[in-house]
Amino acid sequence: MPVTLAEVAKWIGGTVDGDDSIKVSALAKIEEAKSGQLTFIANPKYARFIDSTKASAVLVDLDFPKSAKPLIRVSNPYFAFLTLAKKFYHGVPSVEKGVHPSVVLGENCKLGQDVAIGAHVVIGQNCIIGPATVVHPGVVIGDDVQIGADCLLYANVSIREQCRIGNNVIVQMGAVIGSDGFGFAFEGGKYHKLPQMGIVVIEDDVEIGANSAIDRATMGETIIRRGTKIDNLVQIAHNVEIDEHTAIAAQCGISGSTKIGKYVKMGGQAGLVGHITIGDYAAVGGQGGVTKSVPEKTFVSGYPAREHLKVKREEASLAKLPELIKKFRRLEAEVKELQGRLMEKGQNEKQ
Amino acid sequence: MPVTLAEVAKWIGGTVDGDDSIKVSALAKIEEAKSGQLTFIANPKYARFIDSTKASAVLVDLDFPKSAKPLIRVSNPYFAFLTLAKKFYHGVPSVEKGVHPSVVLGENCKLGQDVAIGAHVVIGQNCIIGPATVVHPGVVIGDDVQIGADCLLYANVSIREQCRIGNNVIVQMGAVIGSDGFGFAFEGGKYHKLPQMGIVVIEDDVEIGANSAIDRATMGETIIRRGTKIDNLVQIAHNVEIDEHTAIAAQCGISGSTKIGKYVKMGGQAGLVGHITIGDYAAVGGQGGVTKSVPEKTFVSGYPAREHLKVKREEASLAKLPELIKKFRRLEAEVKELQGRLMEKGQNEKQ
Amino acid sequence: MPVTLAEVAKWIGGTVDGDDSIKVSALAKIEEAKSGQLTFIANPKYARFIDSTKASAVLVDLDFPKSAKPLIRVSNPYFAFLTLAKKFYHGVPSVEKGVHPSVVLGENCKLGQDVAIGAHVVIGQNCIIGPATVVHPGVVIGDDVQIGADCLLYANVSIREQCRIGNNVIVQMGAVIGSDGFGFAFEGGKYHKLPQMGIVVIEDDVEIGANSAIDRATMGETIIRRGTKIDNLVQIAHNVEIDEHTAIAAQCGISGSTKIGKYVKMGGQAGLVGHITIGDYAAVGGQGGVTKSVPEKTFVSGYPAREHLKVKREEASLAKLPELIKKFRRLEAEVKELQGRLMEKGQNEKQ
Repeated sequence: MPVTLAEVAKWIGGTVDGDDSIKVSALAKIEEAKSGQLTFIANPKYARFIDSTKASAVLVDLDFPKSAKPLIRVSNPYFAFLTLAKKFYHGVPSVEKGVHPSVVLGENCKLGQDVAIGAHVVIGQNCIIGPATVVHPGVVIGDDVQIGADCLLYANVSIREQCRIGNNVIVQMGAVIGSDGFGFAFEGGKYHKLPQMGIVVIEDDVEIGANSAIDRATMGETIIRRGTKIDNLVQIAHNVEIDEHTAIAAQCGISGSTKIGKYVKMGGQAGLVGHITIGDYAAVGGQGGVTKSVPEKTFVSGYPAREHLKVKREEASLAKLPELIKKFRRLEAEVKELQGRLMEKGQNEKQ
Repeated sequence: MPVTLAEVAKWIGGTVDGDDSIKVSALAKIEEAKSGQLTFIANPKYARFIDSTKASAVLVDLDFPKSAKPLIRVSNPYFAFLTLAKKFYHGVPSVEKGVHPSVVLGENCKLGQDVAIGAHVVIGQNCIIGPATVVHPGVVIGDDVQIGADCLLYANVSIREQCRIGNNVIVQMGAVIGSDGFGFAFEGGKYHKLPQMGIVVIEDDVEIGANSAIDRATMGETIIRRGTKIDNLVQIAHNVEIDEHTAIAAQCGISGSTKIGKYVKMGGQAGLVGHITIGDYAAVGGQGGVTKSVPEKTFVSGYPAREHLKVKREEASLAKLPELIKKFRRLEAEVKELQGRLMEKGQNEKQ
Repeated sequence: MPVTLAEVAKWIGGTVDGDDSIKVSALAKIEEAKSGQLTFIANPKYARFIDSTKASAVLVDLDFPKSAKPLIRVSNPYFAFLTLAKKFYHGVPSVEKGVHPSVVLGENCKLGQDVAIGAHVVIGQNCIIGPATVVHPGVVIGDDVQIGADCLLYANVSIREQCRIGNNVIVQMGAVIGSDGFGFAFEGGKYHKLPQMGIVVIEDDVEIGANSAIDRATMGETIIRRGTKIDNLVQIAHNVEIDEHTAIAAQCGISGSTKIGKYVKMGGQAGLVGHITIGDYAAVGGQGGVTKSVPEKTFVSGYPAREHLKVKREEASLAKLPELIKKFRRLEAEVKELQGRLMEKGQNEKQ
């Protein structure tokens, strides 16, 4: 269904800069867009495509320079594009409403209205699953698990007993929630397993990435608070607490009992040792190895992680070090020579 | 069932320091404990909670200072707490004994007494599963696999043909055992797969973390020896051998044919290249990148991993490097000036 | 079936150096080989085993020194060994041909001749699966997925809707294909999910490791081109493109929209930031953290990744830094002393 730029602009509170009767029917990336499609520039790196893109129009921010190409100006082009994506794109609902006959459902479960439980799903006893939640095939849910409304559990997700998941939570394929924490007492030459008696609590609007693992608490709760987004292959150890609206990129690892504030950002493959605190609005660079607590609003990187500006300064210095060592040897020689000459001179004067 | 401190102390061979008739009925973390609960201090960092905790009593070590709070003194409080956890906590057995009707069982399998095989499990031909082993829903076991007694395979674990698992082994959700090693011969401009003909052998009392992957040997065996504990998302490549009672934290990666000794400790996200040996009782710091063999009882860290004290010294030096470069320039200038003055003096003297 | 060395040599285009009537019936690693077995030496590190191995004969390269042990000489012993492995080793076909009765198959699917679909597999609507493809138990395939001929999908693999997989592709256990990319717009204090509208395309002869995750594109395609091999626990983000015959070791992470050339090699646990390009034939060292594009044929390592030779030089310099700082202090003192003496001398002369 092609729509005019005028109409598109109205949906997203933008203004058209060019012919607003032009019609678009789909969204595309700027390098790949064809005629009849709408694209966007959020990252200035992509501004150079403005002249070459085949898109019929481009979503840009308010300060974007004028162009021969029709523009729709909004304050946050990426967010506006997202709004449009929901208008133009209709996700494929691959699980039918109801409970597939192959599902094994424990006693005393409460399933909300309009749930869709896919083939070969296994659900334990006393579980509660909220309305409109979709559970893809192969998911295994333990006893006494509570899952809210409008959640989306993708294929082969595993959730262990007693964990609690809020509303509008998305769990990507293969993720694991509620596995035992890595807790052992060493005694008599071997490790003895400490029963992991706690649970995992995931609040509303959280997303958990594919094949990520979130361990249950030894005692109490491992907590992921509202709106936090976790990418693929991330490890969250026992008793970790992550506050609201934090973003954790793929392959990060958070060790036991560490607390992460709200609005924190962690780059890919970063790691945090256990029992530390990351302040609100702090950021950890990709591959950063954080060995002690980080104050709020602080950007750390490197290993061991320290303030990013300090790291950059040290890196720049390190690049000069091989040359410095050579220069140092030269200077040493020159000083030795000066000493020699001064000595000689002293002796000459004595003679 | 509330029990007196006197009785608790008897269970764990401790002594009560305070009123031993006080009763406790549950365990809790020191920050979260309520009246009627027992907690512990194993890590000195938590000693500061002794005055504020609401717990009715605290397990501490023999040297802990006297307190207004009733104490139970033992030599290893963490291990004693573990012993009590097993008394106070009764894990939820979420798989019923017997074989669920939805299980697909291959021909000629031998299942031990009291096994519990959950819904939608698939087991190949000629498998042996020992007594009292519990297999959670969604597990897939290939042909000719042997699993010992008292094992616990959690949901959606996958084990391939011919692998052998000992007694009392725990495999957390989503873990994979016996996948093909990453072995290819490069010839004619492309990679040709080398058949991975070996197996994985896991001895007694091993634990494998959630979503970890253990590759089968190219030929022979990938071996995890008795009592070794492996955390989540760990990669164990083909033909690796890990000796007894070693602990490997989350997201570590061990490359092909590397041998790890006994009682080794690896911090999270550490990596080992292939074909090296890590000596008994050695340790690798978190994120350490080990590129050559490590002698026994040696603690290495950093990238490339080297002795930890050396790394710390280099780090401390690196922090001083930006300043050193400035000072060096100053010193160079001063030497130049000295040279000038000496030259001048020499010329003056000649005049 | 024991065969003579003469016959073995004929299969692989080699020449026998010794008694060519000796018979072998199996392959083995050089340290483990027994009488009646054939082994190989591809890596010079293993040459020292030539005298102690119990193997009846050894595959070696053309330049290998003469030995008392019967040798078969070929130009690429590892590749020849691979060819023989396929002759001697007959993989266990653990899935029977046909569709297991427990399979849940969506409407309108086309299954090729000789497919083998294992127990409890779930396949969506409108899927095409090519001839002789084997799907192990517990695999979940979404709607509209296309899979080519001769593929091998191991247990508990998950593939989401609309993804396309070529011929002769192997996907190890627990791997995930087509999960949502990690794409959010931040607005009004929270993250809003950007619909991930694209797909994953995997070309012929690709292998994907156990528990790896490959995200679908936000728009367009995440692409893995022909012959590329990906190890376990690797993260491939949305819109990544990996060209032909590239090898990516375990636990690597590739961030969104990054392009990797052909014949690239990435060591274990390496990471690439988003929106960069890695040139053809480039290599990234293990744990390398690549923060900007890498030209073709360049070997980078370290964090942030830079040319490997530069990294080695900086490492060597860093090792000298603690000593340099001490020497610098000494030199500073000496210069100060020289200045003092010169000053003194100047004053003496004035007197």
